[in-house]
Amino acid sequence: MKIRNHHYRTIWRDAQSVCIIDQTKLPFAFEVERLHTHTQMCEAIRSMQVRGAPLIGAAAAYGMVLGCQHNADDQTLQSVASQLIATRPTAVNLAWAVQRMLQQLLSIAVAERAQAAWVFAQAIADEDVAQNQAIGQHGQELIAAVATANPEQVINILTHCNAGWLATVDGGTALAPIYAAHDAGLRVHVWVDETRPRNQGASLTAWELAQHAVPHTVITDNAGGHLMQHGQVDMVIVGADRVTKSGDVCNKIGTYLKALAAYDHQIPFYVAVPTPTIDWQLTDGTDIEIEMRDADEVAYMQGQDEDGQVRRVRVIPNESQALNPAFDVTPARLVTGIITERGVFPPEQLKSLETSL
Amino acid sequence: MKIRNHHYRTIWRDAQSVCIIDQTKLPFAFEVERLHTHTQMCEAIRSMQVRGAPLIGAAAAYGMVLGCQHNADDQTLQSVASQLIATRPTAVNLAWAVQRMLQQLLSIAVAERAQAAWVFAQAIADEDVAQNQAIGQHGQELIAAVATANPEQVINILTHCNAGWLATVDGGTALAPIYAAHDAGLRVHVWVDETRPRNQGASLTAWELAQHAVPHTVITDNAGGHLMQHGQVDMVIVGADRVTKSGDVCNKIGTYLKALAAYDHQIPFYVAVPTPTIDWQLTDGTDIEIEMRDADEVAYMQGQDEDGQVRRVRVIPNESQALNPAFDVTPARLVTGIITERGVFPPEQLKSLETSL
Repeated sequence: MKIRNHHYRTIWRDAQSVCIIDQTKLPFAFEVERLHTHTQMCEAIRSMQVRGAPLIGAAAAYGMVLGCQHNADDQTLQSVASQLIATRPTAVNLAWAVQRMLQQLLSIAVAERAQAAWVFAQAIADEDVAQNQAIGQHGQELIAAVATANPEQVINILTHCNAGWLATVDGGTALAPIYAAHDAGLRVHVWVDETRPRNQGASLTAWELAQHAVPHTVITDNAGGHLMQHGQVDMVIVGADRVTKSGDVCNKIGTYLKALAAYDHQIPFYVAVPTPTIDWQLTDGTDIEIEMRDADEVAYMQGQDEDGQVRRVRVIPNESQALNPAFDVTPARLVTGIITERGVFPPEQLKSLETSL
Repeated sequence: MKIRNHHYRTIWRDAQSVCIIDQTKLPFAFEVERLHTHTQMCEAIRSMQVRGAPLIGAAAAYGMVLGCQHNADDQTLQSVASQLIATRPTAVNLAWAVQRMLQQLLSIAVAERAQAAWVFAQAIADEDVAQNQAIGQHGQELIAAVATANPEQVINILTHCNAGWLATVDGGTALAPIYAAHDAGLRVHVWVDETRPRNQGASLTAWELAQHAVPHTVITDNAGGHLMQHGQVDMVIVGADRVTKSGDVCNKIGTYLKALAAYDHQIPFYVAVPTPTIDWQLTDGTDIEIEMRDADEVAYMQGQDEDGQVRRVRVIPNESQALNPAFDVTPARLVTGIITERGVFPPEQLKSLETSL
């Protein structure tokens, strides 16, 4: 994606280090950070400088690269892998990318690993970009069908959290169809859930849609149901951190509430994911471990003050405590379709995809 | 309610002026503001220094008092009434209180009105307190029944926005049963939805529960569905700004999403309101005018910085716009019961109440 006329991915190699965009600084500052060690990568993932299931997959792959530059023996690789996997428990891409790196690296000579790791990680990043492009094409067809059925009308699409360019290496998952539709000249408008507590909708999705000049409006997480009641939402598209083989969808906390409202109004509810996000080991979404994050993410909000400085302010009384579950599970019965790089699948047909992968 | 060993109502007469607690300053500062004119009262209602359907009813009644102190002729009264009604369109109590004041004042001699107005307004305030006490008793029985069915267990009650002491003259609506249960020794714990954009849950409900030492935890508006999925919510109790005769409930934006989730898990969903909140003219909740408030309420958040200063920070990109519908409508089919001062009514039996009022 282009920012100030320069094409960026969200993560890239530069000499013997890895560069990332520090997403905790957006939308008020665009800062690139250079990482030299796998420990720095673990911290970047944990603190959500990089976030989004596909991106943390790629980030973990690059973490494996950084972790084997000085010593690439089996024990070191296993240790680096464990540290990376422990950073965020919910997203399946992270473990998937680490396991794939591990398998590939263990299968070659120790002396070749440091060099080859760059190639393996680059492949994961490139595949993500290609998958997202395909997701964009398949999803765009769904939007085009709504546009054909409602000519002259703007197509209103609601999204939750950030499953855009910033959540992936490039292109986005849930936003890929929207960018593709917008670029193809379809009139789309995006309702952006702010997505408390970390506000990835308000700070990241809104920012990247603005960069790409896609019409959008930020709303509170509370507002989507009301808009659906009043016919102002034509379609919901979200990403996911993990999808089970039965089509249960684990995504950012609050997704389930939007799915209920969409179902209540027969509004199509789509989930856009590359196939590495599908966990073929799991059927029931309630078995997914839900990450509990620091309560301070609820107790504090970050934003820009009148002087242009980014500040954190406390928004709950000092005497009160908070709880911060990071994800919820939307049962397959509320999901219209899973948009993958292989096509769009109703949840019950997702299984057919497993054998073909 | 007691704050620092002093009993307060949220609004009271002091000589020829009316005192209110400035709720925009809570939870970080407790400030009383003195109002001398109905214009000041209009501004206090509009800016939400006073808010909550029952309280703005009482506030509007006192606004009528202030507006007739120097000139109480019919034309002045009508003009003051119109200005007050225009401040907030959604809550029915406001118009109800103004109409009642108007009717009572117009029926007596002009010379007596300035004096009598204080008495009429005081009656509205006192009735609210008495109604809330009765709501507390009826609601407590519902909580006690859950406690009896689940001995040894803490009863987890989720609430949205603030329908507590601060939303009324005293005692609260949705929180009245919780205070009554807590005071009766039942073990209750409250999940407090933060309630973006104005955070009345995080800033007001959490604050008053803390003042009364009721165990509670603040959660994002996104989290309630997840907690219900995991059996951590036994009951939902919310207030309302307007209830139709069929039992449709207009309340703070986001209520509908929680009602959907409660219904999905067969968790009882109660709405606590004094009968003046019921609009007997309306059957279909979708006919209620939904107030659109300033988009800046979404774009900015207020909180306390590291230095203890209350500050506003911008939380969306400068290039993005926001939309701020203040209420939504929960259809009667999702409501278990309406807790009123006259008892608890399933929505379909609400009509039986009309004739008895």
